[in-house]
Amino acid sequence: MVAMIQEVTTKQVPYKLASRLHHPSPSVVSVRDRKIGDGSVTVMAGPCSVESRDQIIEIAQALKQAGAHLLRGGAFKPRSSPYSFQGLGETGLKFMAEAREATGLPIVSEVMDIENLPMACEYVDMIQIGARNMQNYPLLRAVGKTKKPVLLKRGLSATIEEWLMSAEYILSEGNPNVVLCERGIRTFETVTRNTLDLNAIPVIKHLSHLPIIIDPSHGTGVARYVSAMSMAAIAAGADGLILEAHQSPETALSDGQQSITPDEFEQLMQRIDVLSRAVNMKEGVTIG
Amino acid sequence: MVAMIQEVTTKQVPYKLASRLHHPSPSVVSVRDRKIGDGSVTVMAGPCSVESRDQIIEIAQALKQAGAHLLRGGAFKPRSSPYSFQGLGETGLKFMAEAREATGLPIVSEVMDIENLPMACEYVDMIQIGARNMQNYPLLRAVGKTKKPVLLKRGLSATIEEWLMSAEYILSEGNPNVVLCERGIRTFETVTRNTLDLNAIPVIKHLSHLPIIIDPSHGTGVARYVSAMSMAAIAAGADGLILEAHQSPETALSDGQQSITPDEFEQLMQRIDVLSRAVNMKEGVTIG
Amino acid sequence: MVAMIQEVTTKQVPYKLASRLHHPSPSVVSVRDRKIGDGSVTVMAGPCSVESRDQIIEIAQALKQAGAHLLRGGAFKPRSSPYSFQGLGETGLKFMAEAREATGLPIVSEVMDIENLPMACEYVDMIQIGARNMQNYPLLRAVGKTKKPVLLKRGLSATIEEWLMSAEYILSEGNPNVVLCERGIRTFETVTRNTLDLNAIPVIKHLSHLPIIIDPSHGTGVARYVSAMSMAAIAAGADGLILEAHQSPETALSDGQQSITPDEFEQLMQRIDVLSRAVNMKEGVTIG
Amino acid sequence: MVAMIQEVTTKQVPYKLASRLHHPSPSVVSVRDRKIGDGSVTVMAGPCSVESRDQIIEIAQALKQAGAHLLRGGAFKPRSSPYSFQGLGETGLKFMAEAREATGLPIVSEVMDIENLPMACEYVDMIQIGARNMQNYPLLRAVGKTKKPVLLKRGLSATIEEWLMSAEYILSEGNPNVVLCERGIRTFETVTRNTLDLNAIPVIKHLSHLPIIIDPSHGTGVARYVSAMSMAAIAAGADGLILEAHQSPETALSDGQQSITPDEFEQLMQRIDVLSRAVNMKEGVTIG
Repeated sequence: MVAMIQEVTTKQVPYKLASRLHHPSPSVVSVRDRKIGDGSVTVMAGPCSVESRDQIIEIAQALKQAGAHLLRGGAFKPRSSPYSFQGLGETGLKFMAEAREATGLPIVSEVMDIENLPMACEYVDMIQIGARNMQNYPLLRAVGKTKKPVLLKRGLSATIEEWLMSAEYILSEGNPNVVLCERGIRTFETVTRNTLDLNAIPVIKHLSHLPIIIDPSHGTGVARYVSAMSMAAIAAGADGLILEAHQSPETALSDGQQSITPDEFEQLMQRIDVLSRAVNMKEGVTIG
Repeated sequence: MVAMIQEVTTKQVPYKLASRLHHPSPSVVSVRDRKIGDGSVTVMAGPCSVESRDQIIEIAQALKQAGAHLLRGGAFKPRSSPYSFQGLGETGLKFMAEAREATGLPIVSEVMDIENLPMACEYVDMIQIGARNMQNYPLLRAVGKTKKPVLLKRGLSATIEEWLMSAEYILSEGNPNVVLCERGIRTFETVTRNTLDLNAIPVIKHLSHLPIIIDPSHGTGVARYVSAMSMAAIAAGADGLILEAHQSPETALSDGQQSITPDEFEQLMQRIDVLSRAVNMKEGVTIG
Repeated sequence: MVAMIQEVTTKQVPYKLASRLHHPSPSVVSVRDRKIGDGSVTVMAGPCSVESRDQIIEIAQALKQAGAHLLRGGAFKPRSSPYSFQGLGETGLKFMAEAREATGLPIVSEVMDIENLPMACEYVDMIQIGARNMQNYPLLRAVGKTKKPVLLKRGLSATIEEWLMSAEYILSEGNPNVVLCERGIRTFETVTRNTLDLNAIPVIKHLSHLPIIIDPSHGTGVARYVSAMSMAAIAAGADGLILEAHQSPETALSDGQQSITPDEFEQLMQRIDVLSRAVNMKEGVTIG
Repeated sequence: MVAMIQEVTTKQVPYKLASRLHHPSPSVVSVRDRKIGDGSVTVMAGPCSVESRDQIIEIAQALKQAGAHLLRGGAFKPRSSPYSFQGLGETGLKFMAEAREATGLPIVSEVMDIENLPMACEYVDMIQIGARNMQNYPLLRAVGKTKKPVLLKRGLSATIEEWLMSAEYILSEGNPNVVLCERGIRTFETVTRNTLDLNAIPVIKHLSHLPIIIDPSHGTGVARYVSAMSMAAIAAGADGLILEAHQSPETALSDGQQSITPDEFEQLMQRIDVLSRAVNMKEGVTIG
């Protein structure tokens, strides 16, 4: 038939461990003492790139105070151009570890290759697999052999089924700690950097037991649209958010135009707190 | 530069009357005594197709009781196949008018050609321009010459700028009563019928003064995902929703798989009411 | 299964009259004495817009001399902006008819609404349905009730199946003279205006009996790429081309950047002639 | 302006070494004694996966006899599912090397990670970087540090600019032997596996000096469409083709539906030979 959608039944799908059939209740992934997927809203925030020790510690303190639960920051940056800033590498991870000590925030950072994985695992609490590496199967297998929590971003043109198959690569190696992250898909629309596919939230909740968080920073590419899409994600049932925040977005080494300031972050956290209480999340997001 | 997004400034855009610069405060469009765009949440609901007098009156009463503000229903159906049910035509509009009398709900229905426009205007309170006709410029001009409120759906592969340009066609003919409707865009993802682009909400609020409502029924194509995406739309700041509802979706003549039942509609309205109060909408959605 | 393509068998499709099953041999559509679909290469060329009597007659003579078989030219222009040049209307069609008298070339031009269809039929030899109107079903039915040859362009985001269903609307009203035209689809790529989907040629030849021609002008949006894609289309088995040509592209009222000059057209015709003979088309394209 | 395309000038682009400005004449990449980019048509062919010694030697001999210039075959297979056949690994490369000895055909095979790169370099004549790894920057840098010819496939949703930036990663490490391969992009169309973007041929020839070959097997996903799209690619100016061929496609361990038989390959080579002579390629494709 023309334009008919066959609703996916969980029985016909090619993934097993990622399926609701295999694991009917929602999975909860612990990153240090933060639980993702337990009905609360987990907010990860931080700069696109770690730029200096002072920068990351200062922003971490501001974000912690505003209620963030994890600190994000890039030390290995997948840049389209070989001539762009590529990140501080291990030095960046050291600075993030110092920021963790200063604030208590667990840290999440991207790893792009197997070589740096063991080193990175010594620093970070959660490994991020970026959109460009969603189908880098050797890398998926390698993180599957660790027990580190993994934040698996959806590829720019990956179907939800392919995304779950990539999760399956990690799960099938023995690591159950996978959190999915929708970060926008590539479409014809150019007024936003990507098209944030929030349909993914109810679809994933239907098909899988894995937690899902949303990245409205990459999903819109424009700081002024981040707040609205954060609210939308929580209302749709997402388990959390990952947000780019920077002290002075206009001077950021990367992704400044989609980064919000600590003040904007604080206002957003207050809005999310009210929202999450209204929609019966387990608890509000702001702490103590 | 690679992958840089130039944030649209309202000064560079090719539309005039649809721009925030031309009309800095939000437009409010009145459909009978219902105001769209005044900070409240307007919910339009009804079957994909008007199937019979009894069907449309019965569903209208159920939806009215559950808090709907407008009744939707298709009398002229744009079907991919010439052999599919094409709608009841004027008879369908008469049945809708009877449903309005029975419930007090204003009615909205699609018009596909100029020939039927004057006739349709005698029945309906709001004209819908469907996604396939978003760039049917003679039709846009024709509805621009009426004073009827117009619900302008976004085309399947229309950019937001093109969508606003289509609104400009209507506005430039003298009809200021345009409400935009995001109903999902066409992407590579097939697990949902379309990809609902909620980014459009903050983008439209930034660039334009026109109200925007969301159609999660077409935007997902799957009834079970409608509720989550409705909540997301309201949390992101949409001015309302348009929902497909049917007494018995499994026997509907069209779009049954994406239609919710009156019971599901009522539960959703209660959730939206709580949500809209929490996010400081002007008022909750359920009526007295 | 993941990423499996079920090859379409002609038995499962929703169209009937457009299917190879219904009409196993290729259809030949005659436009005056030119036959489209008989194994020869038919080339339609002309400006995007008819701008003046002199312009259209001059370019028609140059194109005729270089071997063109039909003259194209827009009198009713579907423009994204209501403030852009909208075409000369009936006056433009009169000028085209004069160009036909001067050259003997049959003429093809777009009609955007039912109102102007009878008038347009008095002038043109072939009615073009534009990409934006591919699913304007009342218009499709109306051209189906004429016996005029119809050039049916594929919509920007129409699947091949939807395109054939639109042809079915015309065929089912009794008009068998449908020629399909692939003119590029909308994708994420922005270096070209559209992505020319030449896969459509073998797919259409497999599924349908209708002739298919290619529009590399809109399919690339860049004059310098038109020649290569014209050659590709013929080599893939297309029944012809439709090309935008203008005396001075830099001053054209519309689509100048994708228009080639008469000199470039002549060189291209020579290359196509050699190519079509090599790939065993019925005859070369230039006429003795 | 609406829908305007700014033609890319070679001065504004973010790549340097990949640009025509840096290297005005076309690059020629030698793989053993085969030159790619010198005006001739280079045809690489072979099975999706190496399945056994006998299979690869047998098909290599048949393809050699029909005029193939390189042997392709997968030893490390990037499969969406961790439960699918993943390739024979080093054993597969050994079998390919034996097939080279038996036929004289240079061999090309995909490498998915840095770990296996040095080993693979001992066997293969050309390294393939697959579509899923087009933005695996550490891997690109690693192959950039070898001198091996590299076949760089375009990512499923990569823009042409991003693709050239990935080539820049390889070039900037000192390896100038990059051949680009268009293999279809992901769009909304589902009747074919991907949409083969032949626009890429004139665009790449305009912007870059690197050779470009086309993969119509993945670009269509359907064996019956491979021949037409191969012809189209050559007519548009491609430097060659890479084709999946298998003795018995219906029993292939992967990609059987898009694989052609040795007989079909031979017929296609004859058609390409005629075509390439007609369009003034340096020489026909069939040897001896």
